[in-house]
Amino acid sequence: MTDNLTEDLDDLARDLDATHVFHSWSAQGQPSQLVIASGRGCRVWDHSGREYLDFSSQLVNVNIGHQHPAVVSAIKEQADLLTTIAPSTVNLARGEAAKRIVARAPKGHSKVFFTNGGADANENAIRLARLHTGRDTILSTYRSYHGNTGAAIVATGDWRRIPNRYARGHAHFFGPYLYRSEFWADTPEQESERALQHLRRVIESEGPATIAAVLLETVPGTAGVLVPPPGYLAGVRELCDAHGILLILDEVMAGFGRTGRWFAFDGYDVTPDLITFAKGVNSGYIPAGGVIISDEISADFDAHVFPGGLTYSGHPLAMASIVATLDAMESEGIVEHARQVGAEAIAPALTELAEKHAVIGEVRGEGVFWALELVADPETRAPLPAAEVGRIKGALLERGLLPFIADNRIHVVPPCVVTADEVAEATAIYDEVLGTVQL
Amino acid sequence: MTDNLTEDLDDLARDLDATHVFHSWSAQGQPSQLVIASGRGCRVWDHSGREYLDFSSQLVNVNIGHQHPAVVSAIKEQADLLTTIAPSTVNLARGEAAKRIVARAPKGHSKVFFTNGGADANENAIRLARLHTGRDTILSTYRSYHGNTGAAIVATGDWRRIPNRYARGHAHFFGPYLYRSEFWADTPEQESERALQHLRRVIESEGPATIAAVLLETVPGTAGVLVPPPGYLAGVRELCDAHGILLILDEVMAGFGRTGRWFAFDGYDVTPDLITFAKGVNSGYIPAGGVIISDEISADFDAHVFPGGLTYSGHPLAMASIVATLDAMESEGIVEHARQVGAEAIAPALTELAEKHAVIGEVRGEGVFWALELVADPETRAPLPAAEVGRIKGALLERGLLPFIADNRIHVVPPCVVTADEVAEATAIYDEVLGTVQL
Ligand SMILES: Cc1ncc(COP(=O)(O)O)c(C=O)c1O
Ligand SMILES: Cc1ncc(COP(=O)(O)O)c(C=O)c1O
Repeated sequence: MTDNLTEDLDDLARDLDATHVFHSWSAQGQPSQLVIASGRGCRVWDHSGREYLDFSSQLVNVNIGHQHPAVVSAIKEQADLLTTIAPSTVNLARGEAAKRIVARAPKGHSKVFFTNGGADANENAIRLARLHTGRDTILSTYRSYHGNTGAAIVATGDWRRIPNRYARGHAHFFGPYLYRSEFWADTPEQESERALQHLRRVIESEGPATIAAVLLETVPGTAGVLVPPPGYLAGVRELCDAHGILLILDEVMAGFGRTGRWFAFDGYDVTPDLITFAKGVNSGYIPAGGVIISDEISADFDAHVFPGGLTYSGHPLAMASIVATLDAMESEGIVEHARQVGAEAIAPALTELAEKHAVIGEVRGEGVFWALELVADPETRAPLPAAEVGRIKGALLERGLLPFIADNRIHVVPPCVVTADEVAEATAIYDEVLGTVQL
Repeated sequence: MTDNLTEDLDDLARDLDATHVFHSWSAQGQPSQLVIASGRGCRVWDHSGREYLDFSSQLVNVNIGHQHPAVVSAIKEQADLLTTIAPSTVNLARGEAAKRIVARAPKGHSKVFFTNGGADANENAIRLARLHTGRDTILSTYRSYHGNTGAAIVATGDWRRIPNRYARGHAHFFGPYLYRSEFWADTPEQESERALQHLRRVIESEGPATIAAVLLETVPGTAGVLVPPPGYLAGVRELCDAHGILLILDEVMAGFGRTGRWFAFDGYDVTPDLITFAKGVNSGYIPAGGVIISDEISADFDAHVFPGGLTYSGHPLAMASIVATLDAMESEGIVEHARQVGAEAIAPALTELAEKHAVIGEVRGEGVFWALELVADPETRAPLPAAEVGRIKGALLERGLLPFIADNRIHVVPPCVVTADEVAEATAIYDEVLGTVQL
């Protein structure tokens, strides 16, 4: 193709987008100009060949990198065989995917319910928790994101609505976040202890016997990569056990290599009852997610109907992509690589950046899951204003780095396969752009 | 592969399924034995080559038939280029998909918000309706299914929860269904009139100024292929207009060829404000769905943030499959074929069956969207008991026909590409099995 033609394709893409595509979580009046047409590893390109180094993993989902050849091949092979089939049938790719996921889960978790993404994974975990306990309330933190759904089953008129009428029944509490402590804490230990004391008081005040589950992101992601302090998750588990409350860990963003472990909770002394996943399980090559279910909970539904479901639960093409992704991650040591590149390349690079740029109030993270907290004033920790963050975002993009920006933070979240060289390349760009910030 | 090996694959698939896969809307204790490994057109096969004629289209989604070569090719081509990208970027496949969908929609509907399936399509339509009207209540019928979600955004703690706290706000009413009229009606006209009178009274009683939208399946599907009587949908539109209520038509099952029209509502004098779709738009080859939005509603979000979204909104692979599906349906005249085969082959065949078998209380439908209502007594119209329906299902499967069974009904819902010969083949099997029913 000539350069003109490929630039035309970029323009055509922008034009169709502005005219016909309604976008997530945004105002539609200023459509994005960032065309992406192809990718490989940590890089993506528009039609004219403009290249970006992807330090966002898109929505922190492309853990294995763009266009991993083994996963693409598996999709093409399964596409030739069978793309879609009803969930009620038996399909080998589905069983193989479930087997591989369960192999990474704690003992006593043998079954997987598949969904299309993270939101419906949490929907179904919440449903299972409410049905198992016969209780309504779900406790979760203010600093969390669990998905965008919340109405279709209540709009449904047939019998499937009836066991699902938990229309209210949500309460929120504060999780640990030492840099912006809600508990006047000075040390990680104090933050952990006080956050647990706060949760204990919320449970007592909401009424322990009404609470079905505590739902937590193991490492809250979009909220700022809030690695939990020592003892917190084990303490939550203890509180849950004391009151017959289930623990649901949302591993949608944190799971499958992001932290340098298969599951983020592998790094803590805690066993959840239900685990939700999506994103990294197949790097989003095909929409997929699910819930890993403890045997105690799944046994409830041996004789009783599980009142949840969706047309594409266990979709063969999605399942084949999960099998290929997990096999490649295993055989290529991608999770170990993420841990190592995090410890040896990202951590030192970001620490050095923070020493150099006062705008970086805190660096935190592990594996390929990091956040730079940008502040207008290191003393007061006042967040950098949105306009300045927007300028930084534009400047990073201009220099060919695709960043992940949330509130006043840069999340440094490349694919797990990122190399030390790519980390150095990105660091130089962050460095240059952060150098332009005037405090 | 030898026969032994392929039978082993079927057993392996069953074994993995029973051990590791948790299934939709069912008790898990008696796992399905029906392995499906491959398909083509209206046929599917297990690993050992056992063939089934698919008169279910799985969950009434495989409108274009299994493994349509043009769609499979398009998936493979896009898989080589780019499988996944964040919704906030611009992608050509996404724009091309939206353009084709909007081309089929009523004038004044230019934008599409993409989702992973039908449930989240309805979630987002409900969200749009509530935000546009500033009202809470969604009215829908008892005989309906709109999806399995209803909690994740309320569990979410961050700002995205706040504009979405419509936890209650659902009320249900009865739609028209002459065969089992809730309105003591004797004719379609009477059923239509009385169903509208009933809806008017529900609106008045719930409080018109609190109602954001009426949400209807254009032709209620799982509830029994309840083709609306003359004047009903236009009457609903009128009632909505009188009170500033939006009309959402759920075309997830009825849309994209199922009725022999692109949209089911094309057969009625009605323009919805929001249209939800999934299934037939790409026959489920990749999980996808969405909402078609009127310009009046989408304009609300030119300057204001739309508070909804999902990781895989406008997923490139899903988008490429939509483009290929709609292009193939257009160029091969698949929608016209569905209308014709419905009128010329299915309608006469089912009418003849009903004349022969007293167990068939009513035949209704159009295109490739039909239901046989099975009754224990044609006079009282008492539904055939579940055990006998189960026996029928087993007998159909045994004879190589994959049926769609809902309550006391056989839904005759093959792919749109079904031939008159395949209809004859299926009819012979229905005939034989229904002949074994003793009333
Ligand atoms: C922790 C977490 N849970 C759930 C979700 C929702 O996933 P999805 O967008 O696939 O519905 C996300 C998405 O970012 C997430 O980060
Ligand atoms: C009319 C209708 N709406 C919505 C849905 C939900 O779609 P999904 O299963 O893709 O969530 C269905 C599924 O059968 C449906 O038939």
